[in-house]
Amino acid sequence: MDKNVLNGLFRPKSIAVIGASTQPGKIGYTVVENLIKSKYEGKIYPINPTASEILGLKVYPTISDVPDSVEAAVVTVPAKFVAQVAEESGKKGVKGFIVITSGFSESGRRDMEDEIVQIGKRYGMRILGPNIVGTLSNADKMNASFAPFLPLPGKASLVSQSGALLIAMDASTYTRRVGFDKLVSIGNMSDVNFADAIEWLNEDPSTSCISLYIEGFKDGRQFIEVSRKATKPIIALKSGVSAHGAAAAASHTGSLAGAAKVYGAAFQQAGVVQASDLDNLFDRTLALSLQPPMTGENILIITNGGGVGVLATDAAERYNIPLKFAPAEVQEELKKHMPEFGSAKNPVDITGMAGTEWYHDTIKYAFAHPWVDALVVLYCETAMTDPSEIARGIKSAVDESGVKDKPVSVSFVGGDKSDKAMKWLVENGIPAYGAPDVAVNVMAALRDYARMRAEAAEPIEPCASENRQLALDIINRARTDGRDALTEVEAKEVFAAYGLPVTKTHLAKTEAEAIQLANQVGYPVVMKIVSPDILHKSDAGGVKVNIKDDKAAGEAFSTIMENARKYKADANIHGIAIQEMAPWGTEVILGSVNDPTFGPTMMFGLGGIFVEVLKDVTFRVAPVTSTQAAQMLSEIRGAPIIAGVRGEAPRDRKELANTICRYSNMILDLSDEISESDANPVLVYEEGKGVKVVDARIILKKK
Amino acid sequence: MDKNVLNGLFRPKSIAVIGASTQPGKIGYTVVENLIKSKYEGKIYPINPTASEILGLKVYPTISDVPDSVEAAVVTVPAKFVAQVAEESGKKGVKGFIVITSGFSESGRRDMEDEIVQIGKRYGMRILGPNIVGTLSNADKMNASFAPFLPLPGKASLVSQSGALLIAMDASTYTRRVGFDKLVSIGNMSDVNFADAIEWLNEDPSTSCISLYIEGFKDGRQFIEVSRKATKPIIALKSGVSAHGAAAAASHTGSLAGAAKVYGAAFQQAGVVQASDLDNLFDRTLALSLQPPMTGENILIITNGGGVGVLATDAAERYNIPLKFAPAEVQEELKKHMPEFGSAKNPVDITGMAGTEWYHDTIKYAFAHPWVDALVVLYCETAMTDPSEIARGIKSAVDESGVKDKPVSVSFVGGDKSDKAMKWLVENGIPAYGAPDVAVNVMAALRDYARMRAEAAEPIEPCASENRQLALDIINRARTDGRDALTEVEAKEVFAAYGLPVTKTHLAKTEAEAIQLANQVGYPVVMKIVSPDILHKSDAGGVKVNIKDDKAAGEAFSTIMENARKYKADANIHGIAIQEMAPWGTEVILGSVNDPTFGPTMMFGLGGIFVEVLKDVTFRVAPVTSTQAAQMLSEIRGAPIIAGVRGEAPRDRKELANTICRYSNMILDLSDEISESDANPVLVYEEGKGVKVVDARIILKKK
Repeated sequence: MDKNVLNGLFRPKSIAVIGASTQPGKIGYTVVENLIKSKYEGKIYPINPTASEILGLKVYPTISDVPDSVEAAVVTVPAKFVAQVAEESGKKGVKGFIVITSGFSESGRRDMEDEIVQIGKRYGMRILGPNIVGTLSNADKMNASFAPFLPLPGKASLVSQSGALLIAMDASTYTRRVGFDKLVSIGNMSDVNFADAIEWLNEDPSTSCISLYIEGFKDGRQFIEVSRKATKPIIALKSGVSAHGAAAAASHTGSLAGAAKVYGAAFQQAGVVQASDLDNLFDRTLALSLQPPMTGENILIITNGGGVGVLATDAAERYNIPLKFAPAEVQEELKKHMPEFGSAKNPVDITGMAGTEWYHDTIKYAFAHPWVDALVVLYCETAMTDPSEIARGIKSAVDESGVKDKPVSVSFVGGDKSDKAMKWLVENGIPAYGAPDVAVNVMAALRDYARMRAEAAEPIEPCASENRQLALDIINRARTDGRDALTEVEAKEVFAAYGLPVTKTHLAKTEAEAIQLANQVGYPVVMKIVSPDILHKSDAGGVKVNIKDDKAAGEAFSTIMENARKYKADANIHGIAIQEMAPWGTEVILGSVNDPTFGPTMMFGLGGIFVEVLKDVTFRVAPVTSTQAAQMLSEIRGAPIIAGVRGEAPRDRKELANTICRYSNMILDLSDEISESDANPVLVYEEGKGVKVVDARIILKKK
Repeated sequence: MDKNVLNGLFRPKSIAVIGASTQPGKIGYTVVENLIKSKYEGKIYPINPTASEILGLKVYPTISDVPDSVEAAVVTVPAKFVAQVAEESGKKGVKGFIVITSGFSESGRRDMEDEIVQIGKRYGMRILGPNIVGTLSNADKMNASFAPFLPLPGKASLVSQSGALLIAMDASTYTRRVGFDKLVSIGNMSDVNFADAIEWLNEDPSTSCISLYIEGFKDGRQFIEVSRKATKPIIALKSGVSAHGAAAAASHTGSLAGAAKVYGAAFQQAGVVQASDLDNLFDRTLALSLQPPMTGENILIITNGGGVGVLATDAAERYNIPLKFAPAEVQEELKKHMPEFGSAKNPVDITGMAGTEWYHDTIKYAFAHPWVDALVVLYCETAMTDPSEIARGIKSAVDESGVKDKPVSVSFVGGDKSDKAMKWLVENGIPAYGAPDVAVNVMAALRDYARMRAEAAEPIEPCASENRQLALDIINRARTDGRDALTEVEAKEVFAAYGLPVTKTHLAKTEAEAIQLANQVGYPVVMKIVSPDILHKSDAGGVKVNIKDDKAAGEAFSTIMENARKYKADANIHGIAIQEMAPWGTEVILGSVNDPTFGPTMMFGLGGIFVEVLKDVTFRVAPVTSTQAAQMLSEIRGAPIIAGVRGEAPRDRKELANTICRYSNMILDLSDEISESDANPVLVYEEGKGVKVVDARIILKKK
């Protein structure tokens, strides 16, 4: 894609307003008025077949009548006329077609939307919307929308899937004092989607942080790919976590995957910081747009009050950056800048007597010290000190320290004076908040960002697929049989084709064959019924374990067959699986779903009650890198069990992580075929002793 | 206590400022100035041996020289003179002695503090502080502090353990627009503590909600008792959750109890709502001070924007009040007040076109409908509607509905206009917030409050103690032996004395006795070494299970004895415990600690990995009522295991809850004796089949 085409949407040099109106209150009037009010310096061409002048501007009957070239068209005509004006705009050479008009896919008329996209494709014209508010840019003095004004200027840019929320957030930038350069209403995303907007904003010189309000999208993989490559921080508030249903899931994994978990995993893989709610989106955007990432673990807190210091300490624990004490030499130096009853530990309490100088001196020293990775400065308003002076002291200390690669955040608890001081700090590049909790929370965001960036820089391993045809043959055979699930034996063959360590399992059709295969596998063996009609093998009396010799194997064959017939007389029985009996190990579950947004997605969890009762599972979109697989092992609540608990030897985490990677390659390589799958249980042995997939299940995509 | 005595601290009719100063900037000057500036209507008597007039007021050399009676003294003289002026004040008949001066227990001089308290006791004079800012009351136009002004007037009152934070919060009442009537700085709590303040504020006609900032206190039981009886909502922000150490804990339970968990349990038992951070304290205080509790489960959300609606829906799930759809008849009626494309589900989306009338009509109808237990109204600022008018529409609809016993909260997302509208709403009794998340969060607080109130109304069962002497005899015997831990047999005897269902266990000293007791208990039995010197019985080869006959019992006796001697040659061996072998059941752990703040406190959790890996345990301060015990069973993450998982029969929750109650009675009754204890494992059987304490441990208090 030629990225510059999107300039036509986000910073065009000329704009036609198609559907411009002479009637105040109409959107077609408001957009023209807003462009004028925002002091847009490009050309504005109101288009209206019946008017001659709007707000002092000459009106053209159609866009074709405009004498000059037109880069963007903002469209407010009724939905049924949009295709026609798209055609005209395309012909005119318009690059950005901004469709404010609603009444498309959101009201069941995707066909009308598709038509416009097709027209756009023919002419190399990109579509924003439909069903949007428009786009706004401070850098371009352009309010090409019906939102009443440009946002408070700032370094972040926001892309919002909700138009109403964009208008409200626009207004609230002034009261919250969080500035934005661009606001983009992305609406139905018929053509330009989040990934496109991110890609463009990442190159936009006026944007230093990309903020997203997301309700849901389809092209999840493009989103991850573009976000991983972005060099600016991206922060997302994903709403609707309770909507996305796991209702119709056929497998265990399916029932555990929900929008919140899969989006959360994808954001992490994409290096996208998450916001927990609307306040948090603004708070974190401010910090990410003003401060560098936090590399390292050591936050030092400097405070003039014990109370706010303790609240910040609690917050540090809550957000997983617990405070440590600074080295003795740092404490000694800090001690010089506070009274006897102050504390140089962490928080560094320079006491309520602290004025500008003490703040200045401790900050200047501490910020430059290599032990300190990030600084949180707290101020509790006192009757004796002037918040504005303290703010100036903080700013000059930060500047004089010469440090540019560490973040600082500030919280002033107080009234009007503190508010004014914080306003000044923000205007001078230092994020400041009314509560200590928030100043720490944004530091966690800056640290998450640094960590995820490092991980996003890792190459994604290529997909192993040399045995692909073997797997496809097995799948096709099942499809020919009219089945949409593989039997255990088939599923294990597919797993094995992708290098997954399955227990040796063979299909016996007769008693003699059973005995022969049992000898081949080696006693003791497990025997299980193989029938597409019997899913719950144990309930059907279709499983016998610890079979030790030929006699027992022969007997087991007859008994299982008999039980199966009793359970379901007309069952299609493939035979009996003769399986190596794996020694005891720690039970885990691997599984996959085909997420509607992100496609093939891996799940990992511990077996038994961990998955059944605690739903203690974690997800990653495939392919899963080895670093990501290792993260999966350590982020579940039951992680200590894998790490080795109560003096037990650690489990073979390396091989388990490898298995997750290979499994993820399989579901990606076969993403057109596999709908859901699981390996349950997988037994994990001591370090160096590997893992074994004991049971396997693959459900095919309906074709 | 004569409650009116505290009037002398919180609303005195006359105040002496002892240490009043003529020098601006000195605290002794500021307090006099603040009393005048706040238009205090009582008499002010500056006390200073050298001055004659301060700010136009006549100065007295000592309080004894004041011609009239004096109700309160605010003290700012240096610490070393405080005892002397306390004596003088007591003689003068002062009721409230407010000690601003610092330099007492916070600097290691508890002795000086105790002296003042003793003087106070002699004269019936109550002490606030020392080491405080003072007290402020809007109702009494009294700023008896060195905080610069009275807070924004409101219906809540705040008690703060941090003076610096109180001053900062005072200032921020104006910017946050959360009003308070009284601010009380409670400082070192040498005499008046949180419980005293709560008791008094509960009777104060100007206070409708009691807000607490707590760092930590000692008299936990008094706090619970007073809070349970309070008829006004109490909300607490407890800081320092990471400090309070479980470092030196001798038992499993001890190592799991932390400040956050035990305070959290105590707050719940006390009916005190918790705040998660400073913002949350203000937000929840506003709602609790303006709105009635939420009885029931059904929140209806009315919104003009899908985006904020979804964010509120997510919040409802986050705060455990997931939304349900209203009954069809409600939806039908609501449908009449919105355009075709609106939604009458929940959230009720009256669309961006919604003006004041639609808000008014839907709110008026919905709020009065019996299905609706609480209403959250959201407004997303649009260019077409006026936030102030919407606010008026909301208020009049609420008023016209005639509903007084259900809460309503509001969120306006927008700019200045929305801010002004919210200010008006708050002034008119409706809590309003800038983010939908918060409007839902405060509803969760109002519901928690209603639930905890209902529970706090339940009587606390009396402590059963008929076998107390039996238990004491066992304990005293161990003490006589110089031991601070009971053996398993002894611990079980103590447990049994309080009606706990222990496995039958007897001590055999000889092989013959072992065989005899095994027959008495009934085979199969378990045999375990009993020695105060062998704590890890299994490691010492000191346990044999499933002993089925006399021969095996005899052999086990010799083997265990031999193993024990090998393990520790000089071990003091009491003998061997012959124990009934309990059939398999679900393993749980009960335990107790003696919390430094709340005293005897119960722990409950599931056994095995739940406690070892997941730390999935919960606490209640003893005595535990049966409702509280039932809550404990349902609030752990592993609760489904007790309720019956995967088709298994539910466990005997009733008997398990009874056991918790009895256990809690035991640790309370023996609180002078027992330091920590546990019953681990306790086996829980199917409903109606009871529970069995299989192993028991009691660690005595050092005397």
